[in-house]
Amino acid sequence: MADKKKLVEAITSRDVDFAQWYTDVVTKAELIDYSPIKGFTIMRPYAWAIWENIQNLFDAEFKRTGHENVSMPLLIPESLLQKEKDHVEGFAPEVAWVTHGGEAKLEERLCIRPTSETLFCDHFSRVVQSYRDLPKKYNQWCSVVRWEKTTRPFLRGREFHWQEGHTLHETREEGEQETLMMLDIYADIAENALAMPVIKGQKTESDKFAGAEATYCIESMMHDGKSLQAGTTHFFGDGFCRAYDIQYTGRDNKLHHPFQTSWGVSTRLIGGIIMTHGDDNGLRLPPAVAPIQVVVVPVATHKPGVTEVAEALVEKLTMAGIRAKGDFSDNSPGWKYAEYEMKGVPLRLEIGPRDIENGVCMASKRTGGEKFTISLDTAAEGAKTALDDVQRELYEQALQNRASRIYTAKTLEEAAEKVKNRMGFVKMMWCGDEACEDAVREKVGIQSRCIPFEQEQVGDVCPVCGKPAKHMVIWGQSY
Amino acid sequence: MADKKKLVEAITSRDVDFAQWYTDVVTKAELIDYSPIKGFTIMRPYAWAIWENIQNLFDAEFKRTGHENVSMPLLIPESLLQKEKDHVEGFAPEVAWVTHGGEAKLEERLCIRPTSETLFCDHFSRVVQSYRDLPKKYNQWCSVVRWEKTTRPFLRGREFHWQEGHTLHETREEGEQETLMMLDIYADIAENALAMPVIKGQKTESDKFAGAEATYCIESMMHDGKSLQAGTTHFFGDGFCRAYDIQYTGRDNKLHHPFQTSWGVSTRLIGGIIMTHGDDNGLRLPPAVAPIQVVVVPVATHKPGVTEVAEALVEKLTMAGIRAKGDFSDNSPGWKYAEYEMKGVPLRLEIGPRDIENGVCMASKRTGGEKFTISLDTAAEGAKTALDDVQRELYEQALQNRASRIYTAKTLEEAAEKVKNRMGFVKMMWCGDEACEDAVREKVGIQSRCIPFEQEQVGDVCPVCGKPAKHMVIWGQSY
Repeated sequence: MADKKKLVEAITSRDVDFAQWYTDVVTKAELIDYSPIKGFTIMRPYAWAIWENIQNLFDAEFKRTGHENVSMPLLIPESLLQKEKDHVEGFAPEVAWVTHGGEAKLEERLCIRPTSETLFCDHFSRVVQSYRDLPKKYNQWCSVVRWEKTTRPFLRGREFHWQEGHTLHETREEGEQETLMMLDIYADIAENALAMPVIKGQKTESDKFAGAEATYCIESMMHDGKSLQAGTTHFFGDGFCRAYDIQYTGRDNKLHHPFQTSWGVSTRLIGGIIMTHGDDNGLRLPPAVAPIQVVVVPVATHKPGVTEVAEALVEKLTMAGIRAKGDFSDNSPGWKYAEYEMKGVPLRLEIGPRDIENGVCMASKRTGGEKFTISLDTAAEGAKTALDDVQRELYEQALQNRASRIYTAKTLEEAAEKVKNRMGFVKMMWCGDEACEDAVREKVGIQSRCIPFEQEQVGDVCPVCGKPAKHMVIWGQSY
Repeated sequence: MADKKKLVEAITSRDVDFAQWYTDVVTKAELIDYSPIKGFTIMRPYAWAIWENIQNLFDAEFKRTGHENVSMPLLIPESLLQKEKDHVEGFAPEVAWVTHGGEAKLEERLCIRPTSETLFCDHFSRVVQSYRDLPKKYNQWCSVVRWEKTTRPFLRGREFHWQEGHTLHETREEGEQETLMMLDIYADIAENALAMPVIKGQKTESDKFAGAEATYCIESMMHDGKSLQAGTTHFFGDGFCRAYDIQYTGRDNKLHHPFQTSWGVSTRLIGGIIMTHGDDNGLRLPPAVAPIQVVVVPVATHKPGVTEVAEALVEKLTMAGIRAKGDFSDNSPGWKYAEYEMKGVPLRLEIGPRDIENGVCMASKRTGGEKFTISLDTAAEGAKTALDDVQRELYEQALQNRASRIYTAKTLEEAAEKVKNRMGFVKMMWCGDEACEDAVREKVGIQSRCIPFEQEQVGDVCPVCGKPAKHMVIWGQSY
């Protein structure tokens, strides 16, 4: 118990210091280890297993909707990066440069991809000739490098893992549809698998991806009321295709530029899961992506038959498709309870001699509530029901937190007052002028997160300039 | 037909110029595209789909044998690379160096990982304290960069994709067992899934991995008689652990260095599949890893019902777990036959009005033989049987090619004579002296490929120096 006690004590309370609590959880739950290079983290087995589960969910949806995985090179020649003006301005200041291969200085500097639009465009320019080659619907899973100044595990790294979808379409409408379809897929998985309620919307001009015509996003509220941009999709129009000379012969036998999209989610989602669901005992993982969905803890293993029945229970759950683990180590039951709470395992089943006599095990959901019994005969069904409950409860609790922190405001003073003690999302009108957007940031300390698709008329004028309002914007503090 | 005719004509005959044939196949079968940087290739959807199938097979075996996936950083500080003397000597000359992050020059150069031993060691030094932390059985899927002078798609790239396993063990015996167990897994998948016969053996001292105590390999013969090192496993003893200060408190309460292994297979296996099985019509893919196992080609689609029956056939195959595709494009059947032969699809099913009347479809295996009928009622079973046949025939043909090119020799002259007109593997004795190994390379133009586990006494003395022989070695030309 001694070791474990120390482990639990070492976690800062979530409500005392959210940032420190986060750092404690990512290390104590054995998600990450810091490498010698700032912003480059080691994803330990538990974190990578969560990421693999997330990947599988997205990848299945990408394939179902006709996308194919590919692999582009790791490096981009400087000249290739520079072809699209806005894009190079956005990314050049934060890329890592390779200048030497072996002993020799390279003739041209190469950057490690910060994102792969330029590589996809270069490839597309060679393989797209006719409208018969369209659409091209590609995706790649990889890591990218951006030389960020401040870094935090999962949330902002100099290296991070993600997927980047890149598609080409014959018409503007098809491209726009793709951009919105992928946003819907992101939102569905975020809400139904990661149990993170999201708001779908469009980024303002100042917050667009470098080179995009429009950027859409899903914004999710963390437990502390701050906002996490959990996924983005971009519509490029034909800008990159013009810059990279991608043309196809259309049905009219004339040359055209295709319309393009890109979209991505990253390991940032793991940060989102932690900050949406975690509590003072550690992680709380949604069953849909938990590497261990059920942990079986045998109690009083010196009594005959306990270990065997516990092993049989793990086997039964596994055969039913549940990711189950039995902990038969010589650590105490108390140590194990704390350990798997820290790891966020959704359901714990305890089993001792008396339980076996009664043909049951004792179940505890990571979302709390009284312990309850599950019959050993119908353990798989019982566990599945409990996992469904945990999945739903995590979502409902997150939704409740968000509901309690969504404010409307008609003036900057009102907005400032509302977020002063308790950060959250502020719904406020906006005239569309970047100067007014800047003013909100400077005066209230919140930024435009998105122009939500679901608009409400919370006022008639821009609270900054008093001119007629164009949109309702969600404002907040971002990760 | 015109387009496709050109496509097929553009392939050089395999027996005329094997190297050119290879280059033709990797581009015409749409496996790769060349990026602007030498040695960095784009893996197009068809190649990546093959790699995903290969990954899934290996990953399942790794997990079954208790390994966990992790993710290490992309970059290694120069000082970290330098801790193990042999390792840095082996790799430093061929790494890519990052010198700038954004606008700023870095204080220390960082290399893009050529392999990740040093990163794993650094991590292990922080997370291993007690014998209870052992074994650590880790694997990662990633790409690595080595600044090679000559490059060829899949076979030798400046960037290539692979998996690298890294494990730590309490005892030397456990470490050695792991090294050999992983070699067995590599051999099983190579032979049973990729249909590539392999020889298991140990590398000579001169051919070991930089820093290893022993390197084991699976060597496979390509159609042209040359040898492909298809996978390697390394036993490190405790050398790296000493260099990187990895210690644990043992059961005896004293400090010890653990014993270490690493092992990898790469996208090179795709090159192996191409060069083992391909023919003058293009790829021939083993069904176990073929992205499309069965292609259904409807014939005379203007006749009523043909398209519907063909669609139902694809659906039936898919439901039975077969990776099936129907080509309903307006290309001619002849074009489609050539196209899917080029792509190496193991089984083609043609279906036209007369076939439908007879309740059958016409089947052609990519391995050749007469066309035969498969009943539409039992199409899934019929296709599965045919796919099993193709899988077996590919292996048997490769085995036959290898058998016809394995020679034994007692003198260098004899060895030279045998490989002069027809390259292959030469079994020849060796005294164990590196000078004699060099002499074989210089005088006969073949290198030691491995000391096979299955030894034969093909002579008593070393053919170079005449001293008593220690081992039988397989000699050949390597990719």
